[in-house]
Formats: sequence, structure tokens, C-alpha cells
Amino acid sequence: MVQATALPRNEAGIEAAIGVLRQQFGDQMQTGQAIREQHGHTTTWITNQAPDAVVFPTSTAEVADIVKTCAEYGVPVIPFGTGTSLEGHVNAPAGGICVDMMRMDQILAVHAEDLDVVVQPGVTREQLNTFLRDQGLFFPIDPGANASLGGMAATRASGTNAVRYGTMKDNVLALEVVMADGEVIRTAQRAKKSSAGYDLTRLMVGSEGTLGLITEITLRLQGIPEAIRSARCSFRTVDDACRAVMMTIQYGIPIARMELLDEMSVAAANSYSKLSLPETPLLLLEFHGSDAGVLEQSETFAAIADEFGGFDIEATSSAEERNKLWQARHDMYWACMQIRPGAKGISTDVCVPISKLAECVGATQQKAEDLGLVAPIVGHVGDGNFHSLVLVDMENAEERQKADEFISWLNDLAISLDGTCTGEHGIGQGKRPYLQKELGAATRYMAAIKAALDPDDILNPGKILADKG
Amino acid sequence: MVQATALPRNEAGIEAAIGVLRQQFGDQMQTGQAIREQHGHTTTWITNQAPDAVVFPTSTAEVADIVKTCAEYGVPVIPFGTGTSLEGHVNAPAGGICVDMMRMDQILAVHAEDLDVVVQPGVTREQLNTFLRDQGLFFPIDPGANASLGGMAATRASGTNAVRYGTMKDNVLALEVVMADGEVIRTAQRAKKSSAGYDLTRLMVGSEGTLGLITEITLRLQGIPEAIRSARCSFRTVDDACRAVMMTIQYGIPIARMELLDEMSVAAANSYSKLSLPETPLLLLEFHGSDAGVLEQSETFAAIADEFGGFDIEATSSAEERNKLWQARHDMYWACMQIRPGAKGISTDVCVPISKLAECVGATQQKAEDLGLVAPIVGHVGDGNFHSLVLVDMENAEERQKADEFISWLNDLAISLDGTCTGEHGIGQGKRPYLQKELGAATRYMAAIKAALDPDDILNPGKILADKG
Repeated sequence: MVQATALPRNEAGIEAAIGVLRQQFGDQMQTGQAIREQHGHTTTWITNQAPDAVVFPTSTAEVADIVKTCAEYGVPVIPFGTGTSLEGHVNAPAGGICVDMMRMDQILAVHAEDLDVVVQPGVTREQLNTFLRDQGLFFPIDPGANASLGGMAATRASGTNAVRYGTMKDNVLALEVVMADGEVIRTAQRAKKSSAGYDLTRLMVGSEGTLGLITEITLRLQGIPEAIRSARCSFRTVDDACRAVMMTIQYGIPIARMELLDEMSVAAANSYSKLSLPETPLLLLEFHGSDAGVLEQSETFAAIADEFGGFDIEATSSAEERNKLWQARHDMYWACMQIRPGAKGISTDVCVPISKLAECVGATQQKAEDLGLVAPIVGHVGDGNFHSLVLVDMENAEERQKADEFISWLNDLAISLDGTCTGEHGIGQGKRPYLQKELGAATRYMAAIKAALDPDDILNPGKILADKG
Repeated sequence: MVQATALPRNEAGIEAAIGVLRQQFGDQMQTGQAIREQHGHTTTWITNQAPDAVVFPTSTAEVADIVKTCAEYGVPVIPFGTGTSLEGHVNAPAGGICVDMMRMDQILAVHAEDLDVVVQPGVTREQLNTFLRDQGLFFPIDPGANASLGGMAATRASGTNAVRYGTMKDNVLALEVVMADGEVIRTAQRAKKSSAGYDLTRLMVGSEGTLGLITEITLRLQGIPEAIRSARCSFRTVDDACRAVMMTIQYGIPIARMELLDEMSVAAANSYSKLSLPETPLLLLEFHGSDAGVLEQSETFAAIADEFGGFDIEATSSAEERNKLWQARHDMYWACMQIRPGAKGISTDVCVPISKLAECVGATQQKAEDLGLVAPIVGHVGDGNFHSLVLVDMENAEERQKADEFISWLNDLAISLDGTCTGEHGIGQGKRPYLQKELGAATRYMAAIKAALDPDDILNPGKILADKG
């Protein structure tokens, strides 16, 4: 594992805060080692840094009470959802109190006429979509994991549907947030647009719990499309596939999903999901619209794919076939893990301008090969975003070092191509040096905002920004 | 006119700063009364508050130099574009230096493959679209006025196309900004999405020059649609029209524009633009897509309109007829002004959840009638946003007072309906009390951010937030 830096602990404050919280929360607070470690864990190779206690609030008022107590004693507060973040977002490098939001799982109001919904942060995206289905509505953001909507807002998540429906920044209308001093604010009203002052909604989205704890979320919804059609198409090279992606975007096809699997990922999918796809780079696509519209979209795409040597194109409006294909896509993490049983999977997450995608993906494959690393690629390529899942034997120090070199090289490459070191996973602990490289002087003003809103640095310390001192 | 509050002036600092800037900028700085008053003026009934000097920089480095000098002497800096804002955004209540960005009018780079463009802040939207036309691209945000893109970013502008393409918040990819200390930052890279740290891009969009001066803007572009079809449809009542809007949005038609004119506005358009529309509430629509797609959209809309008693539906794919209709829409301000020559037109700008639109528009018409005010309504109703243009005889104190009462009542009504006091015009000087009503405690944290990024309050003071003290 990669050792995370510990920060100075306020032992006396932590002890005092736990005492006060135990009075108020009783069994709603837990301090057992197993539960603490579970809450200091994310899907990452960064070492576990457990909080000192985990509280399970059931209301905004309880969250505010926890924050007020922690503010009084200068103790870290770390919000926690499903624990599916990837960059050490919920580690507790200075200890403190983890606030597990999963008991705040109520869908508070559906405004079908306005295409919006108000939820508590512990509602998961699958829970929400199951609830909405009867009303002909859905929430499009799909990061893969069945994450909590609070966590998705906090990390500015996106995923397969973002090419059409945007990311969390585009789909959160308003937030209720508990600030560092325990004050509860609303960042916006429910109107679809507004020019009313600073955009606190967007500032909170992606702030990873470092500026406030999200306790309520108003989300934009979509009507379930009249028709959905999916397609797959194989290409001889990643370069051809990426060029087809670029042309599809330029052509303005309102594509709902456009995912790339490289040859190694396709082989893994064949094996894991019992498919028999040609083991060459593959695009998976989905079209949303009217019956005529999705047919037209899929035909236009087929014509574009043909120009770039696309072959074995299959399109279907059958829900069953579509689900099989997308299930395989969603299972890619597990499929890739089977390539090398026992290895640790470390996911990279760069996003580049689409004109640089072919270059970036190609160079990434070459670099992994040069370093002798096993690193299949999948990606939300309609947005220029892709993940290389580096499969690392953690017992092999040389390989760990090579994986480190690869990740660092890839982040630098993306930044040099006017891209970002994180399309959707966030900064957490792991990507803090790259944020500095990517945005330079701008991070000083991020730090100023952090200091203004959380002067005692109690909200999820050690994340996003460089440590002080 | 409504008297704007003056703020304390730093006379010695202003004099010193002007001395230094004159050395550096020579003829690029002007202090004549006419030019100063022109830069203290916006389309508003708030009194003119002229700056002490106007500087016309031609580069980011020059903007940074101006800000550094003003920072050194503690002097206000007010960025200026086309002067088409509506809420006293560019007034200089404490005097200071106006920075006229209109000589920074270069289109720096078009990335056609990535569907983005990099522009200086003085580029206007019409200039940009004229430049892009040959490449089959366009920038969709259209606030009516031929505003500068810097100003549009600073006020989070939107307009007729926002229902499909979003507002400036959705269409700015990255900014270069001169901060209050003269440092130049970039808020993001050119990737289409990112989770890299706090969203400074969205924080700057809509900050009205109070957090930094925008010196470069990377904007998302769209391909010019294969087909464009427009339509108009008359309704017996505003309520019927609004219900048709609601159903169209719920139905998920990817409508590009959906504008309401109430009966008074239609009469004004007939007179000004030589049309012969039925003088009842009217919806104007535009559909973007493929040939088959726009036909399907317009037919689906027609079926919906029919349910709500829509009549005299006309749809066309002729560019000439379409342009005539939208020219009439764009001329509505002038058309309405002709209803009452000599009156001052004061534009309101509320935006409510679409389920509240019919109620809000209906109540607004009734209230104007009750107060004896002439106040035609136009609106970007697909977003729930509408403007009542109150035509006020400024010589009549009682009428001015009634207009004031009307505006206040309407902002309160919108807020009570979970809407906003400004869908797209911004807060400026005029709406500061309503921002407090709308977002309450949240404005304290906006003030904390302002204090963190501009500790000496030199950037466009007296805007958005309440005056100190």
C-alpha cells in the first residue's frame, strides 16, 4: 500500500468530542475498531487511516449538532457515504469523527412536473431510480458503483451518461449544507436557473466534504426516453475507435453513452461475462430519443464507424440484449481483476480534449507495455475521459514503483495535453500533487476559500489541498 | 431615477492611482466627464455613478497592471463590457477605475474538433457567431443584447436558447482571471469535464466582477444543426400557454427555444414589427435536429398545444420566415417601449419552477392591473423565467412608487414559490435586498468568500452583497 501522511492529532479535543457525542448519540455512535477501519477504507492503494468514531445521524439537525461539537473541540469531521471513492477521500489522517450519512436515506419530495427530486444524502442512485421508474422518470448520472447521491455530489461524479446529461455539477439544482460552524444553509432555490449571487451549489459540488456536509440535494431528473437503442462496434485499432468517437461528437449526434474498451478489456469481458466479442478495441453506445430518432442516430453512427473501419456493428432496441451489454460494461472492474487474480487494481482517471484522445490512449497503452504493466483501459470516451486499471502485485516492490511511475507519467501527460488528472474521481489525498501541477496559482485561492469557510480546518482535513506548514 | 447609495471614497488613493495609471497608459486612460458617465450607466433606473477614470487595456498583462496599481492604493476596479447589464452592475458607488474590456476583442483559438473556442472578454456574441459560421459552429447563449462574452460570463447570462443549451455556467469551460492582488490564474484546463478541486470556473461565472476580472474565456460550442424549424402558436389564456409549456418540457422534447409573449406584448410586436398575430398569448418555438427530428418535434408540440386549446399554429423550416419571427422577439424591448413613448422600461427577471409558472405569470398580470401599471410580459418560459417590462413615467412619483411596490412584490412572490429574484440579469446593486431574502444565511458565506479573495473590497464594491458596516 502507499503510505498516507498522518497529520497532527488533537488528542484532548477528540476525547472530549467523543464524550459529548456519546452523551447525545448513544448507540448511534460507534468506536469499535472494525467499524472505524471500514470507514477509513476506500477502493484505493492508499493505506487505511481510521477515524476515532463513526456517528450515524438521521437528520440535518443531528449533523449540525455533530459539527458544532467538533467545531467546539477543533476535531476533524469526515462525511461518509458508500465508501466507493477512489483517492483516499474518507481517510482520517488526523483522526476525528466520521459522519456516516447512510441512515439519511429518504426521498423527500418528487416534483414530477418540474423534473426534480429532493433527497437526503444517503439515498443511492439505484434506490432513486427504482423509486422513480413508475413515474416515467430517471436520474441519469451513473458512476458505476451504486454510490450515495451525497457522495456523488461531493466528488462531482459522472460516468457513462455524462456525454449527454452532464455531470453532477449540471444535475444538482440546490443543496442544503451544514457549514463548519454548524450553520445550515440552502445554496439555491428550486428554479431551473438563477443568477442570484455566487454559485455556492457548484462550489460545494466537488468539494469532497472540505467546505461543508451535504444534508439535502435537489436533483434534476429526466423523462425515461420513449426509445432506447444500443449498439456495439469493433475497430482494428484504438486510434480508429477514438477517431470515430471524435467524429460522432463533432457531428452532433446526441449520444447518451459512448464507451471504449481496449483489446485487453474486451478479452476480459469475454471471459468474465461469457461474451464472444472480437478481441479488438470496442465502442459501446446508447441512443435515447423517439423510435425514429434512435434509429436515425444509430444509422448515422454506423456510417461514421464505417469510415474508420468499424466492423461487427450490432444495434438493438431489445432491452434484454441492451442490459446484457451494459451489465458487462458495469462488471468491467471485476472482469479486469480476473486477468490477474490477487493483484490490486489501481484506477487512473484522466480526461483530455477529444482531439487529444487518440494520442493519449495510444501513448498510455505503449507506456504500460514499455513498463511491463498489465493495465486494461475502459473509458467514457465521448467526454475524453478514460481509466487505465493498473493491476499491481503489491508484494513486488519494483512493480509498485513502476505503477507509481506510470500513474505519475499519465497524469502529467494529460495535463500537458490541456486535460485534467481527474475527470470524475476527484483529488482526495492521492491527487493533491497533480492538482498543484494542473492549476498552479489557482490552488492558492482554493486554499483561501477553504480558510474562509473552515478557518480551523476541521472539515475533511488533508484532502484536495496541500497540507499546511 | 432610483437613488443609488454612495460609498465612502478614498480620494487620496484614487488620485494617486490615476497618476500612476496615466504614466503607464497615457491615452489608453480617459477621465472626461462624458466617457466616465457613459461607463457609469446601465439600462436601469438606478442613478448613474461614474468612475473617476476609464482605462482601455489591450492585454491580460495590462489588466493585471491596473489591478496591482489599484490594489496598492486601495482603489475600486470595475470591469466593463458593452454596458448592457440591468441592475447597476457597473456603477461606481465609491468611484474608482473602470476597466473597459472592449479592446480585448480577439478570438484567440478555435478548436473545431473539440467544439470549443478561446476568446478575450471584449468579443461579442454576434462577433463570435459571425466568425464561426463558416466552420459550421455556433455559440448558443443569446441574452438578447449583443453583449460581450466577458460580461455574459460575469453575470451568468442565458436567454432564449438556455432551455436546450444551458446558461453561461454550462458553457464556460475555463477562465483566465486577474485576481484582486493582480495574480493571473487559470480556473481549469480545456477537458470537457473535471473533478479537480473547487470549481473556480463556476464561482467566477456570475460573480459580477466582484471576485476577479475575466481576461480570457474558453467556451463550449455547438455544431450548427442540420435542420432548424420554428413555430408559433396562440392560446386563449396565459394559463393555457404555460400549461402547454409545462407539458412540452415534461414530454422531453429537446426544444431549443420556447418563448412566451403575453397579449400586451403581442399587440406591441404587431405594431412595431408589422405583424398580424392574434392578440392573445403566444408561444414562439424553435426546434434543432435532423430534418426528420425537427419535423417530429414540431408535430409532437402541435399535438400538446392542441390539448390546451392552442390555435393558429404555424411551423416553418424557411430561414427567412424564422428570422422574421425571431427578429420580432429580439425587438420586443423596443416594441414594448413604443406602447408608452417617453416612459422608462424597467425589466423584472424572476424564474420559478415550471409547475409554478402559470400561477406566477397570472398573478403578475393581475397585480400590474390592480396597480394600474403597464407591464407587458415576455419570457424564456421553457426555463420558468419571465420578464415583466414595467413602463414607468418617471415624472410621476406615485407611479414610481407603485412600480417599486410591484417589483418588490414580484420578487417576493417568486421567492415564495421556490424561485429566484433573478433568472439571468444578476444582482448588481438593485437586487441585493432580494438576494438576502432568497438565500438568507448563505449570503454570509458568500461574504466570507468575497473577503477571502478580495480582502480590501476593491473589486466592483457595492454589488451582490450588502454594504459593510
